[in-house]
Amino acid sequence: MREIRIGSIARLDRGRGERLGIPELVLAEGKRIDHLITIVRHLAAERHGALISRPSPGQLRRLRDEARRGLPLRFLASGRLVRLAGPLSTPRLLRAPVVLLAAGTSDVPVAEECRAVLAELGARPVVAYDVGVAGLHRLLRVLARFERLRPAAYLVFAGREGALPTVVAGLVGAPVLGIPVSVGYGRGGRGEAALNAMLQSCAPIAVVNIDAAVPAALWAARLLGRLAPAAAR
Amino acid sequence: MREIRIGSIARLDRGRGERLGIPELVLAEGKRIDHLITIVRHLAAERHGALISRPSPGQLRRLRDEARRGLPLRFLASGRLVRLAGPLSTPRLLRAPVVLLAAGTSDVPVAEECRAVLAELGARPVVAYDVGVAGLHRLLRVLARFERLRPAAYLVFAGREGALPTVVAGLVGAPVLGIPVSVGYGRGGRGEAALNAMLQSCAPIAVVNIDAAVPAALWAARLLGRLAPAAAR
Amino acid sequence: MREIRIGSIARLDRGRGERLGIPELVLAEGKRIDHLITIVRHLAAERHGALISRPSPGQLRRLRDEARRGLPLRFLASGRLVRLAGPLSTPRLLRAPVVLLAAGTSDVPVAEECRAVLAELGARPVVAYDVGVAGLHRLLRVLARFERLRPAAYLVFAGREGALPTVVAGLVGAPVLGIPVSVGYGRGGRGEAALNAMLQSCAPIAVVNIDAAVPAALWAARLLGRLAPAAAR
Amino acid sequence: MREIRIGSIARLDRGRGERLGIPELVLAEGKRIDHLITIVRHLAAERHGALISRPSPGQLRRLRDEARRGLPLRFLASGRLVRLAGPLSTPRLLRAPVVLLAAGTSDVPVAEECRAVLAELGARPVVAYDVGVAGLHRLLRVLARFERLRPAAYLVFAGREGALPTVVAGLVGAPVLGIPVSVGYGRGGRGEAALNAMLQSCAPIAVVNIDAAVPAALWAARLLGRLAPAAAR
Amino acid sequence: MREIRIGSIARLDRGRGERLGIPELVLAEGKRIDHLITIVRHLAAERHGALISRPSPGQLRRLRDEARRGLPLRFLASGRLVRLAGPLSTPRLLRAPVVLLAAGTSDVPVAEECRAVLAELGARPVVAYDVGVAGLHRLLRVLARFERLRPAAYLVFAGREGALPTVVAGLVGAPVLGIPVSVGYGRGGRGEAALNAMLQSCAPIAVVNIDAAVPAALWAARLLGRLAPAAAR
Amino acid sequence: MREIRIGSIARLDRGRGERLGIPELVLAEGKRIDHLITIVRHLAAERHGALISRPSPGQLRRLRDEARRGLPLRFLASGRLVRLAGPLSTPRLLRAPVVLLAAGTSDVPVAEECRAVLAELGARPVVAYDVGVAGLHRLLRVLARFERLRPAAYLVFAGREGALPTVVAGLVGAPVLGIPVSVGYGRGGRGEAALNAMLQSCAPIAVVNIDAAVPAALWAARLLGRLAPAAAR
Amino acid sequence: MREIRIGSIARLDRGRGERLGIPELVLAEGKRIDHLITIVRHLAAERHGALISRPSPGQLRRLRDEARRGLPLRFLASGRLVRLAGPLSTPRLLRAPVVLLAAGTSDVPVAEECRAVLAELGARPVVAYDVGVAGLHRLLRVLARFERLRPAAYLVFAGREGALPTVVAGLVGAPVLGIPVSVGYGRGGRGEAALNAMLQSCAPIAVVNIDAAVPAALWAARLLGRLAPAAAR
Amino acid sequence: MREIRIGSIARLDRGRGERLGIPELVLAEGKRIDHLITIVRHLAAERHGALISRPSPGQLRRLRDEARRGLPLRFLASGRLVRLAGPLSTPRLLRAPVVLLAAGTSDVPVAEECRAVLAELGARPVVAYDVGVAGLHRLLRVLARFERLRPAAYLVFAGREGALPTVVAGLVGAPVLGIPVSVGYGRGGRGEAALNAMLQSCAPIAVVNIDAAVPAALWAARLLGRLAPAAAR
Repeated sequence: MREIRIGSIARLDRGRGERLGIPELVLAEGKRIDHLITIVRHLAAERHGALISRPSPGQLRRLRDEARRGLPLRFLASGRLVRLAGPLSTPRLLRAPVVLLAAGTSDVPVAEECRAVLAELGARPVVAYDVGVAGLHRLLRVLARFERLRPAAYLVFAGREGALPTVVAGLVGAPVLGIPVSVGYGRGGRGEAALNAMLQSCAPIAVVNIDAAVPAALWAARLLGRLAPAAAR
Repeated sequence: MREIRIGSIARLDRGRGERLGIPELVLAEGKRIDHLITIVRHLAAERHGALISRPSPGQLRRLRDEARRGLPLRFLASGRLVRLAGPLSTPRLLRAPVVLLAAGTSDVPVAEECRAVLAELGARPVVAYDVGVAGLHRLLRVLARFERLRPAAYLVFAGREGALPTVVAGLVGAPVLGIPVSVGYGRGGRGEAALNAMLQSCAPIAVVNIDAAVPAALWAARLLGRLAPAAAR
Repeated sequence: MREIRIGSIARLDRGRGERLGIPELVLAEGKRIDHLITIVRHLAAERHGALISRPSPGQLRRLRDEARRGLPLRFLASGRLVRLAGPLSTPRLLRAPVVLLAAGTSDVPVAEECRAVLAELGARPVVAYDVGVAGLHRLLRVLARFERLRPAAYLVFAGREGALPTVVAGLVGAPVLGIPVSVGYGRGGRGEAALNAMLQSCAPIAVVNIDAAVPAALWAARLLGRLAPAAAR
Repeated sequence: MREIRIGSIARLDRGRGERLGIPELVLAEGKRIDHLITIVRHLAAERHGALISRPSPGQLRRLRDEARRGLPLRFLASGRLVRLAGPLSTPRLLRAPVVLLAAGTSDVPVAEECRAVLAELGARPVVAYDVGVAGLHRLLRVLARFERLRPAAYLVFAGREGALPTVVAGLVGAPVLGIPVSVGYGRGGRGEAALNAMLQSCAPIAVVNIDAAVPAALWAARLLGRLAPAAAR
Repeated sequence: MREIRIGSIARLDRGRGERLGIPELVLAEGKRIDHLITIVRHLAAERHGALISRPSPGQLRRLRDEARRGLPLRFLASGRLVRLAGPLSTPRLLRAPVVLLAAGTSDVPVAEECRAVLAELGARPVVAYDVGVAGLHRLLRVLARFERLRPAAYLVFAGREGALPTVVAGLVGAPVLGIPVSVGYGRGGRGEAALNAMLQSCAPIAVVNIDAAVPAALWAARLLGRLAPAAAR
Repeated sequence: MREIRIGSIARLDRGRGERLGIPELVLAEGKRIDHLITIVRHLAAERHGALISRPSPGQLRRLRDEARRGLPLRFLASGRLVRLAGPLSTPRLLRAPVVLLAAGTSDVPVAEECRAVLAELGARPVVAYDVGVAGLHRLLRVLARFERLRPAAYLVFAGREGALPTVVAGLVGAPVLGIPVSVGYGRGGRGEAALNAMLQSCAPIAVVNIDAAVPAALWAARLLGRLAPAAAR
Repeated sequence: MREIRIGSIARLDRGRGERLGIPELVLAEGKRIDHLITIVRHLAAERHGALISRPSPGQLRRLRDEARRGLPLRFLASGRLVRLAGPLSTPRLLRAPVVLLAAGTSDVPVAEECRAVLAELGARPVVAYDVGVAGLHRLLRVLARFERLRPAAYLVFAGREGALPTVVAGLVGAPVLGIPVSVGYGRGGRGEAALNAMLQSCAPIAVVNIDAAVPAALWAARLLGRLAPAAAR
Repeated sequence: MREIRIGSIARLDRGRGERLGIPELVLAEGKRIDHLITIVRHLAAERHGALISRPSPGQLRRLRDEARRGLPLRFLASGRLVRLAGPLSTPRLLRAPVVLLAAGTSDVPVAEECRAVLAELGARPVVAYDVGVAGLHRLLRVLARFERLRPAAYLVFAGREGALPTVVAGLVGAPVLGIPVSVGYGRGGRGEAALNAMLQSCAPIAVVNIDAAVPAALWAARLLGRLAPAAAR
């Protein structure tokens, strides 16, 4: 494992992808723009592929400028995720599909961010959106179709009251990961009620933080990566 | 309207039942035992019917002692509600049934407390318990049966993630009132997640406080009372 | 029931109005603008009436642009609610009036949003504003007048300490629904204290979330719709 | 000012009463029993009058033991307050009455604790209990009577939704101090909603902490003490 | 008492000032600008004096426009308070001074807002700022000077840890009212820690909400008004 | 799927195990003792195997009584889990081991509860306890050994600051599930800080609620069950 | 560094004391009694000195039993701390005194627990109790005396509003560590307000968790240990 | 000690630096711009050195204007700290280094603000950034190097889950001060989880508030100042 120093502000580990089953990920949110650009340029110079997540509008503008000046960046999921070209060095993944479900249209951007990460890592995401519990028949139709694919996991995105992962986990046999989405106003809004509801679920579901699309994807990828050899060899 | 003074500690309004559509209700919880007994004895002496809710174990013991000594008390819903004999003076209620649903067995005592109040007031409660969203098919069967009765309202009891009222409100046409139940451990436990989930529901549901079985029943009774004449005349 | 797919982002149910007693409602808040416009255009193409609630300023500008280009949109309650022309397919409502009370002038916009929904659905909202508990005599005069109309319900809007629904529920015989309004600064501000006060009310009131004008209206409409036939037949 | 050392655990200031307008007060809650008894015995040996507040059941038992063995203790407000005989050395108070109002019977013990302190200090407390906002006419009758006494202040005790101080402050011209009481269950219970509602009041009221009967009394006494000379001289 | 209707959005009570000891106050914050201007114009037309508090920057701009067009408005406390000319109709106040203390320079704007209200109502506010507990000797000098004036009350403004009211209440004999100020970052910031610290004070202090400069002033005025006749007659 | 009714209080689904990959589980906590015993007896009569989790001390005593009277109950994990004999009907699980790590000795009971469930379901749990981050070298030794087993997942139990899952997820390639444990006093105690820290983790970890040993085990079992056929066929 | 395994439930590091400057510490709270006794017996068998903190009443009884049976245990600070005889292996400490101040008598037990740890480690704690800010002159006298000793640090214990550390840090030149104490009722009680106030302090103070007497002592010991050689060589 | 009055808004103490071991510090955040500029100009006129912390963007613009007009201001740490030229009058500091560690790049700005204060005061800060626990080997290398310098203290900056101070405190013998950084989204974001995790740490660490870079630096300086003479004389 080789450490790459980027001035005094960052240290990157070559070889982390293979070892840990996750790619180089730069969480843009909270970083000063000059720090972010320094890191991305440095990675590009090293021909080190990476994912850049949650850029602010200001950061995104600067990244698009850099792209116009030649940095090999692709903008995915309407700009919520940025892909720096180059190998991500992650292991081969189990080819079983991973299902992404979103309760409402407002949850779609977060789900799309997750789908983009999974696709970049070589997984097989399949999606169905606007299948919330207020229209149960839509959901039942969708799940009947998906269960036939025997997916490795369900990643279920929901804001507001966050009931969808619980209902799904009562209908399918695969592990369910709930991703609360920062939708909703008033008490329990911005994903708070959804997160708590998922933690309290009467069905066995695991949870990540509100809007944590990228951790959810990496977690699923790690699952697929760990299990791939057992299936493949 | 005539005010009845009970020492310096309480004042009761004769005639409140007809005017407001709700009976005399004594919330036992939080009262000193001697204060509670004084009030109940006074009401009995006045031949004033009443409901006594949420007695603590200590209060309940004392009330049972009083009953043995002749106070006309009946103990309902396993002692969560006590009925002092005498007229409650509430108006006649619409005869449409009110459905009570409980998500799990742990929610049953709170639902039974609500049912007892409704029955005392002359309403027509019908119930189905353990119909939570983790076993959706049980719920669908039950709702299909109940909707044929064209109930005036659904009172839906749920702890944990509190998803049941939302799912019900997406399947029936009657107004739904959610009653969060103080079940569940960890973050969002004791009904907190359920309450927030109901407030965030993507379906139009109204809510009362955690374990508020009696306010839910009184609210429903007031609804039935207000609408009864419109139907009857 | 026929499902209408709108690209991959939304699924609409034809026939939901009659079945559930509520119209097609698009919660604009939280949706990406392009998603919102896609949905509204699609509904318009299908001649499907709808209500669009809580548009952000940016969304509202775009909707006004669309209206200028010919989309049949009406802007109600100072733009807090948008009506897409077309049948809402909701059932006939009981003709009893529904009273809307607002504690202060700051609560008026939320109450007006609720009134607009009720009016679109064919209910009979009647209103009185600035009747908060700090000036009790104003309130007593107003209630005396309204009770003579024998309204089906009172929808009571209040921010700050949220005392109005409690006081109203102690003076009238109809069911009271409290709608906390995000008014007030400091601890308990933005409707938080009002919501909790309504949940703690010593009178039987039901509650919706902070600023939840539209759910309150839909809930009341469902009530009127369910009870209408009982009265009409 | 002379400091009295009680072992290493406490230091008392002689002369504090006159200077600050408040008596020696020992908050029993939270103290080890042996520490509490040491302090009380020491004060008794010094012939120093004092008030002992909020004793736990265990502390109260020990204090009653001490009383039986001769310590000059009186037990007030059903044991919520204990008076150690001896001068309290507080200044003379304005003779205007102070009104204490309690919303419900459950609030009475806290109000009685406050009344006992005021009486010990030589103030003129007058009380009316069970005058909550759910029965407004009782309250209006009571206030009409009290305002004629031109009281120096109203101390208003309320749990649950805590609306009473707000309503009172909209009806009287005297300063109102709200004392939230730890009554109520579910969200906002144990006085939390009441405290926030009082802080959010649309009328000008000042507040003390939940169940803070003694601080409320001392605060009122200080007010009366400060103003007494202006009236008397 | 005569009610003045302002369209459907507001109702004002003539005669409230004398009866309740507080002037007409319009809380601008949270009101729509057109509603605010309508109210202020109406009051001006009625020659009704008033105080307008907490205008937002946008509201303030509009009020300044109105002033340029002739509305008799004065802008006090750097625009945090606006005075509409005309009688406030409040009773005569006790002439004892009221002391305002601010812990730091950041607390000064809130204290100045309070001072402006008191001055408009005819009270005698005296002030000392930047006397926080980190520099105790400054505070001791200031208090020694003020106590000689025998003030009716101390209004103490503090953000951050909010210790100043507690320390002051341990040094003076007058009643102390704490006003937490929304200063401070991180946990407990924006006045939250200060409010809780004041509620927990080991000295008897009363509290208003965070930044509640106007309620504090009205409360003090009511106190002075109630006591004035006792002194004056 | 056949529904079994247990009086009016519970409904069980035969066939749920195979379909959903989880056994019949009775959450004892929150249930009335008579309800619990009724359910367990009914299951025993049906020869239906089950797991009973989180019995209270009172419930446990009654279950031990029932065992003495012949109900086929085994008491696991020091009584935190009770096994009713009979088939659990869950699918065959992948044979890869699942690693359980506990940060401190206080976390052991929760981890043991999880281990017992996994063992009952036929999984291969392996454990190492007291490997918290304050003694990093112990942890590194343990992980080096476990990674050679290529486990399917790590279930990591930690209270207090909850750092262990994050550190583990930075050192291994398998998916990590964090289980916060209700250990710790003061702010953030009882697992609150641990839960939030896991949700905020800079490594991709999924989380269940505080002390949710059984949901964690079921979730892992579902994972192993879903993946088993892919490996086995 | 040698690891000592205690069954499967604990692992101890020999040599940790010298390396990290802190002794073996067993946090009893939260541990099962059998686990605790196993650990303590094992340490005793290894002649390994240790401190056992925060035993529950049940644990304490068992430890006293063990002491009667010969385990070399001493019970300090009224049983809040237990010392297992044997070397603690911590480094030599700087001989400058450390001052412990407690605001009130209720804070004394926590301060005594801290003093006992410091004394066991060879530090020089000096104390003054009941020097809270409500009696400022007592505090000023005490600090004048202590500053002449040029202490290495002040450890300041306070519950309620937690103002004492802030006031102390404005009067002395040594570093101040605040320890909030779980004293106080109502909002912000049990040390919550005190902790937040210390975090918000306008003076530079560092903080530990509520009641964290032992971490405070260890932290101070580590400071003295690190600095000792600089002073001694 | 001489008090300097700055109009009515501020009072400065000459001589405070020597006495308390900390320089004149002006917390810009929360101050009105005119107040801030008045204070800074006044200090400059008095040739009084000072540090100005946390200026808002608007305040910073004005300070840069003042600098262009001749005020002797230097802008440090990318403008998070401003140095007004002139003596800070703080005591000589111990020359042992203080180590600053930051978990991620997002934490660097806060750490740099702290470093700038330490450097201005004459301390010897040494830094290593991006050494978070997700890449443990980087941290171990860095700590091995730093421990050889025998630093007086470690100041450890971390957002998100805040695990770094705990891990560091388990590896080094010097006192550790944790500074939570407002990084992270969702539940526990903006430093909340990090703060709680540090308070719950299983290793003895002291904590300051979120983003409290300057208090951390002043606290460390006070430590070094207090200990300096012991080493130097």
